[in-house]
Amino acid sequence: MARAPGAPSPSPATPLSRTARRKAEARRRLLDAGRIVIGERGVAGLRITDVTERADVALGSFYNHFESKEALVDEIVRDSLGEILSSILERTPLDGDPAPIVAASTRRFVGLALEQPDFARLVVSLDHADSVFMDAIEPAARDAIGQGVESGRFSVVDLDTAVITLAAGAVALIRAIVEGRHDVTDAPRLYTEQVLLTLGVDADEAAALAAAPMPAAPG
Amino acid sequence: MARAPGAPSPSPATPLSRTARRKAEARRRLLDAGRIVIGERGVAGLRITDVTERADVALGSFYNHFESKEALVDEIVRDSLGEILSSILERTPLDGDPAPIVAASTRRFVGLALEQPDFARLVVSLDHADSVFMDAIEPAARDAIGQGVESGRFSVVDLDTAVITLAAGAVALIRAIVEGRHDVTDAPRLYTEQVLLTLGVDADEAAALAAAPMPAAPG
Repeated sequence: MARAPGAPSPSPATPLSRTARRKAEARRRLLDAGRIVIGERGVAGLRITDVTERADVALGSFYNHFESKEALVDEIVRDSLGEILSSILERTPLDGDPAPIVAASTRRFVGLALEQPDFARLVVSLDHADSVFMDAIEPAARDAIGQGVESGRFSVVDLDTAVITLAAGAVALIRAIVEGRHDVTDAPRLYTEQVLLTLGVDADEAAALAAAPMPAAPG
Repeated sequence: MARAPGAPSPSPATPLSRTARRKAEARRRLLDAGRIVIGERGVAGLRITDVTERADVALGSFYNHFESKEALVDEIVRDSLGEILSSILERTPLDGDPAPIVAASTRRFVGLALEQPDFARLVVSLDHADSVFMDAIEPAARDAIGQGVESGRFSVVDLDTAVITLAAGAVALIRAIVEGRHDVTDAPRLYTEQVLLTLGVDADEAAALAAAPMPAAPG
């Protein structure tokens, strides 16, 4: 798993060894190259040789970095979802209220199906779309919801249950939209409102938060 | 799709033609045989020849009934889920309140992960577990929730959104439990309570309904 700790990280004072730095750079180049190739040809057209050539990495060493083509794609999707999440967290005022963060993230993620349909299709086409999505958002979702529960802003029956099922609901909606089974342009707002209600936010506020303008880029 | 209407069904007065009856019987025998073979050897050990032999159907005619082995398995799972649902509907008093039906079904489905882990593993191992589950439960879920919304028993932000996401939450929990990522024996009750809250049932009643004894078999 991408998340496994592996070797203990060097202390900040010790720079990465030249080998480790090179390996990390090659991995990064493979991910960037994979993203470009997918953008140009879709996942179906993704061949490892195209990725290694574009990344200027020897074909044979691809497997030092990724178990398979699928593992590369999973990691690209996880990375992209993580970047989307970070940009929401950066843009949302950290005034101690997690409700706007939950609202903005839910709307943004479900909104992928409408705003970035190719990427959304890629996400839900993955073998274990739910767990890739979960890997990408779980820590932040658990933090935000858990913090809200502690402060009394949210109330949940069970934190784990809420995190797992609310994330799964977002993925299912994205899938239903890209597959044409759910045809509601308002889907991101509607699900956001439902999520806030599930977290115990009262009805008027849930509706207002779900419809609030998305936070603008900082600065 | 299994759901496609196909030819108009004969009026009740017209019995199925002999050929159609035979075809339906063969299909039924293939499904039963598939279920037995899966029970004995798991899906990995399922070979079409074993199924056709046990069903006493010519190997070559398997594909008149199912597109592939996977299509047979999907149909077996859909059937089994449908039977579970029917048995809940039969056992739940139809006094016009859909809340106990939603509660009993949610608990029962999430409970599969604990009570019938082999079957639960089979469900979530399917290529599109979410849509197979959805196919099986959607009409009943939409009926029960829609009826509750009409009578004012439930309130939802949007019916479609609620049906899609609440079903997806159940599948995600089943998956998390069978994969050992969610270790809460109380998971069925906790999610049932969350579902009822999401449908606007007040907190005390949601807790009581989620913890109520499961309806006994009729008679």
